[in-house]
Amino acid sequence: MPHKSYDQYCGIAAALDVVGDRWTLLVLRELSFGRLRFTDLRTALPGIASNLLAGRLRDLEDAGLVEQQELPAPAARTVYALTADGRRIGPVLAALAKFGLPLLDDPVDGGVRPRTAVHGVLAPLLDGVTAAGRDLTMRFDLDGEEHWLRVRDGRLERADRAAQPDLVLTGSAAALVELCRGTADLETLAPRLTVRGSRAALTAFHELFPVTTAVPTA
Amino acid sequence: MPHKSYDQYCGIAAALDVVGDRWTLLVLRELSFGRLRFTDLRTALPGIASNLLAGRLRDLEDAGLVEQQELPAPAARTVYALTADGRRIGPVLAALAKFGLPLLDDPVDGGVRPRTAVHGVLAPLLDGVTAAGRDLTMRFDLDGEEHWLRVRDGRLERADRAAQPDLVLTGSAAALVELCRGTADLETLAPRLTVRGSRAALTAFHELFPVTTAVPTA
Repeated sequence: MPHKSYDQYCGIAAALDVVGDRWTLLVLRELSFGRLRFTDLRTALPGIASNLLAGRLRDLEDAGLVEQQELPAPAARTVYALTADGRRIGPVLAALAKFGLPLLDDPVDGGVRPRTAVHGVLAPLLDGVTAAGRDLTMRFDLDGEEHWLRVRDGRLERADRAAQPDLVLTGSAAALVELCRGTADLETLAPRLTVRGSRAALTAFHELFPVTTAVPTA
Repeated sequence: MPHKSYDQYCGIAAALDVVGDRWTLLVLRELSFGRLRFTDLRTALPGIASNLLAGRLRDLEDAGLVEQQELPAPAARTVYALTADGRRIGPVLAALAKFGLPLLDDPVDGGVRPRTAVHGVLAPLLDGVTAAGRDLTMRFDLDGEEHWLRVRDGRLERADRAAQPDLVLTGSAAALVELCRGTADLETLAPRLTVRGSRAALTAFHELFPVTTAVPTA
């Protein structure tokens, strides 16, 4: 344990004993998007020192939340991945993302990572109740990057790239964030963000990802 | 801001910029149970230094999540309370509590604060989907302390003490935690924890607060 435990009989304190250190939840955020090499993790977390990242990963391995995996040839490299226990952090990340979304400044085109927009802003908005029994495959072509999401029976999955998407959203990651923050709708966002798909798929999209409306005035 | 901002365009990073400092989420946890005087906060957070707590409260006031309130006579004292923006932290605390609950050791009679058991362990288990349209008032008499909870239309409220409870749980806070962790049921917990109420109320209780089953083996 890198710091003093709160030593309180409380789930919140116990959780923070494991994930409360600076950078730890952002490391888990990155790995929740998929397994990554050490160098990719460092690139995704600007400002983190290499030895600090190594220490956090070691702590997370000791806690059983992260594990190293060896990819077979031809990749033949070591990656970090969440364990089954580590994936239990998902609802914590989603709740933090929803809490923080209204605190962000208005996004600027080119200033938002497409991966953050899809996995860090849109995905946490998923309404699990509405999503039960629904199926929707989405492709995002944002600022030259392609990302896929699939809603299946109330859960989000990384979709198979070969799947036929029900909805294709093309444009800037910043525009997708504006849509998620409820500061603009699809009509006003065109042509910075355009959508292809059936009317039913579009309706499903809006029902599955209700926009944040609680933008604080501060 | 007491520390360097992560400076990432991401809701999770923005949330942690505001609530990610050591002790901050535990301060918010205490205030989520109700408004408190500075001295009561310090008592509830063993190990926190007085000047550190004062600093955290100042940061939270600056962020608009906490405010000071002056209670009228005869109380005539200053208390700290969550603002409307501050209450938005509720789902983050609930997600952390659920994540951390399986990490705790088995509880020991007398070693669990009744307030923690009711508000920090049981309350976060509320299944919001099941709770829609339900109403259940509970009184807890644990280790000599009395606490009330009311489920109303999918939300938890502090019940009016004068209300007639549908369910009265009497005994040790540790036994309530065992029930929540799924390591024991009401039958085996008697007489350390006993329940009075109709069969319908008891069924509702079990449906509204499904126990954690994901106890890691590590």
